[in-house]
Amino acid sequence: MPVAPHIKEFMASSSFIRKMFEEGIQLKKQYGKDSVYDFSIGNPDLEPPAKVRDVLRELGSSNERGMHAYMPNAGYPETRKAMAEKVSGEQECEVPFSQVVMGCGAAGALNSVLKAILSPEQEVVVSSPFFVEYAQYVRNHGGILKTVSSQEDFSLDLEAIAAALNNKTAAVLVNSPNNPTGKIYTTSEIKGLSDLLAKHREKTGNTVMIIADEPYREIVYDGKTVSSIFPYWNDSIIVSSFAKNLSLPGERIGYTVVNPSAENASELVDAIIYTTRILGFVNAPATFQRIVAACWNEPVDYSPYEKRRTLLKKILTEAGISFANPEGAFYLFCKVPKRTNTVGEQGNDGEFCDHLKKYRILTVPGKGFGKQGWIRLSYCIAEESIARSRESFIQAGTDW
Amino acid sequence: MPVAPHIKEFMASSSFIRKMFEEGIQLKKQYGKDSVYDFSIGNPDLEPPAKVRDVLRELGSSNERGMHAYMPNAGYPETRKAMAEKVSGEQECEVPFSQVVMGCGAAGALNSVLKAILSPEQEVVVSSPFFVEYAQYVRNHGGILKTVSSQEDFSLDLEAIAAALNNKTAAVLVNSPNNPTGKIYTTSEIKGLSDLLAKHREKTGNTVMIIADEPYREIVYDGKTVSSIFPYWNDSIIVSSFAKNLSLPGERIGYTVVNPSAENASELVDAIIYTTRILGFVNAPATFQRIVAACWNEPVDYSPYEKRRTLLKKILTEAGISFANPEGAFYLFCKVPKRTNTVGEQGNDGEFCDHLKKYRILTVPGKGFGKQGWIRLSYCIAEESIARSRESFIQAGTDW
Repeated sequence: MPVAPHIKEFMASSSFIRKMFEEGIQLKKQYGKDSVYDFSIGNPDLEPPAKVRDVLRELGSSNERGMHAYMPNAGYPETRKAMAEKVSGEQECEVPFSQVVMGCGAAGALNSVLKAILSPEQEVVVSSPFFVEYAQYVRNHGGILKTVSSQEDFSLDLEAIAAALNNKTAAVLVNSPNNPTGKIYTTSEIKGLSDLLAKHREKTGNTVMIIADEPYREIVYDGKTVSSIFPYWNDSIIVSSFAKNLSLPGERIGYTVVNPSAENASELVDAIIYTTRILGFVNAPATFQRIVAACWNEPVDYSPYEKRRTLLKKILTEAGISFANPEGAFYLFCKVPKRTNTVGEQGNDGEFCDHLKKYRILTVPGKGFGKQGWIRLSYCIAEESIARSRESFIQAGTDW
Repeated sequence: MPVAPHIKEFMASSSFIRKMFEEGIQLKKQYGKDSVYDFSIGNPDLEPPAKVRDVLRELGSSNERGMHAYMPNAGYPETRKAMAEKVSGEQECEVPFSQVVMGCGAAGALNSVLKAILSPEQEVVVSSPFFVEYAQYVRNHGGILKTVSSQEDFSLDLEAIAAALNNKTAAVLVNSPNNPTGKIYTTSEIKGLSDLLAKHREKTGNTVMIIADEPYREIVYDGKTVSSIFPYWNDSIIVSSFAKNLSLPGERIGYTVVNPSAENASELVDAIIYTTRILGFVNAPATFQRIVAACWNEPVDYSPYEKRRTLLKKILTEAGISFANPEGAFYLFCKVPKRTNTVGEQGNDGEFCDHLKKYRILTVPGKGFGKQGWIRLSYCIAEESIARSRESFIQAGTDW
């Protein structure tokens, strides 16, 4: 029995997202790409900015030596400086480049941060629904993910968060715009969160970090913006990536920024550099460190996502499926409709996903995100594909 | 106190290699590149094959869509097929591509494997001296690295390994050519290891995996070759990378191959795909998956390493420093000489490294590799730099 029993157990209850994504690849082979409507995964279908290819070509033509060699584990100084500039703007405060550690995507960065701060059995609080992999990331490093239900409209339930804090709480994890709901937390919510952490510290002496996972920061609708965090809570860390905003998810390029005003800020940076090394990331991939240093502020037109959002909302409404209106990111979080064949019984989210799959519509159940009775649709796919899915949705809605 | 206390403690006793590498960058800025002799890290100074740049340029000119998107967590099928072809040749048996999982360097791959197989407190046995990071990789996943001294000539001490096995042993980790000694284990040693694992299984019912970490397989001298493992022990796994043979350490591209004859082989592959995902690697970087699929069998001339080995051996001999003759890789493992200023007292390896640093020679102490009284010199640096280090070595030897 070469696989560890606890890993076998985790695998059995593991992410539907990847399962659906890989099933989708098979179904497309079987039925043709155009006959499968794959809303399973956040794999952006917009192409990266043209400059990404320009820089790739330049690097391929360069005579520079050691372009693919080891660099310091934290990353190239030039790349860290570019990230510091980016995050200084977003966080409305001056961030020196020494606070930046390049990472292998936001997922890699988040694992490095959690490894650096968590002692065994410490808790990380997150508002539910939440990105399904967080539970595993926290568990990787001996911690426990403690979920707190959000408000009805998916905003933070600050009272519930306050009640969830105890002397084992290491961090509150904030994901805005949120995956799967598309909710953006307001500055007033962030201030409220900081206030309650301050009260908790006063009462217990325990400093709780805010870790903000922000890969969707740039993808927002209706003139919304994403709040800064650094000015409101010193003990805070941003992790992010270029997976979604520059459509580079396969390249595993992201970063961590520690608030320069955090308690022991430089020790914390050193610890994250160390954990990046020992977890086997070693450093963020060299070539894409160069690419994001050159391309991080390229203008990107996210209006296709807005069009797709509008189109999908229209189709779902026609199909009798209600949803939360996403303020950012590219997910529609939908309520499983009442079954038409039973007396007002609400359907199970797993069953509804299976039902939709019969119409070659691939989605993921809310259960994995901590919210039963809901499903997630990712609309970062071709508009034509969304348009073509209309009849299938309507039929599926009727037959449910 | 935002850093976990156990991480603080680990950091304090952490790798000298990176510390020296980063000190070297500072010293070179201070004294000029030519006045610092940096033998600290295995950061190959040979350039990658020209084809790497050709493929980078091609990718930059390609109109293919989704080139940087997510692919299945195991990697592109084309890349996995290329790796299967490579490893089939090396392991002298047919390896289907379904046994290959692409990883973020050998370090990433090894972490994914250990996470997949280790239950808390299980042991991984390694022959000492060993690559310094193994202890941390094993500890990341709740395991314990159990070190067993090698023979005097750094070959495996099979009796000692047999004595180290117990019902908590999950794996024996084999690194050939070895870092830091350059030792290649013979087929007869691998067979001997397999025999003792078979006896252990007979006696206890416990199957122990062999995990072979092989990033130096291609870099060998004097017509030596590296033994296969798959034909001798079914429950075996290869992890490797293109960091050393193609000089791509900064790109974090490697792979894991599970012996197709392993017990529960496909379950084990699934577990490694799963751990690659949840540890936050997600997948090996997309662009370099394409590059290694195209470049893995490009001919590389390793003769510069052979020349450097000859030159460095000559200089060390002149300086009165003895060493193990490396059969592969690019490290010279050197015995700390007796101090000339005391009555035959052997020096401490940390002190000797500090002593050499005064002559701007950067090396790393053997202590971290589990072998006090020795130091490691990495000779994957420019031949001119080795040549220029001669007087410093001789002076340092005299002054010790």
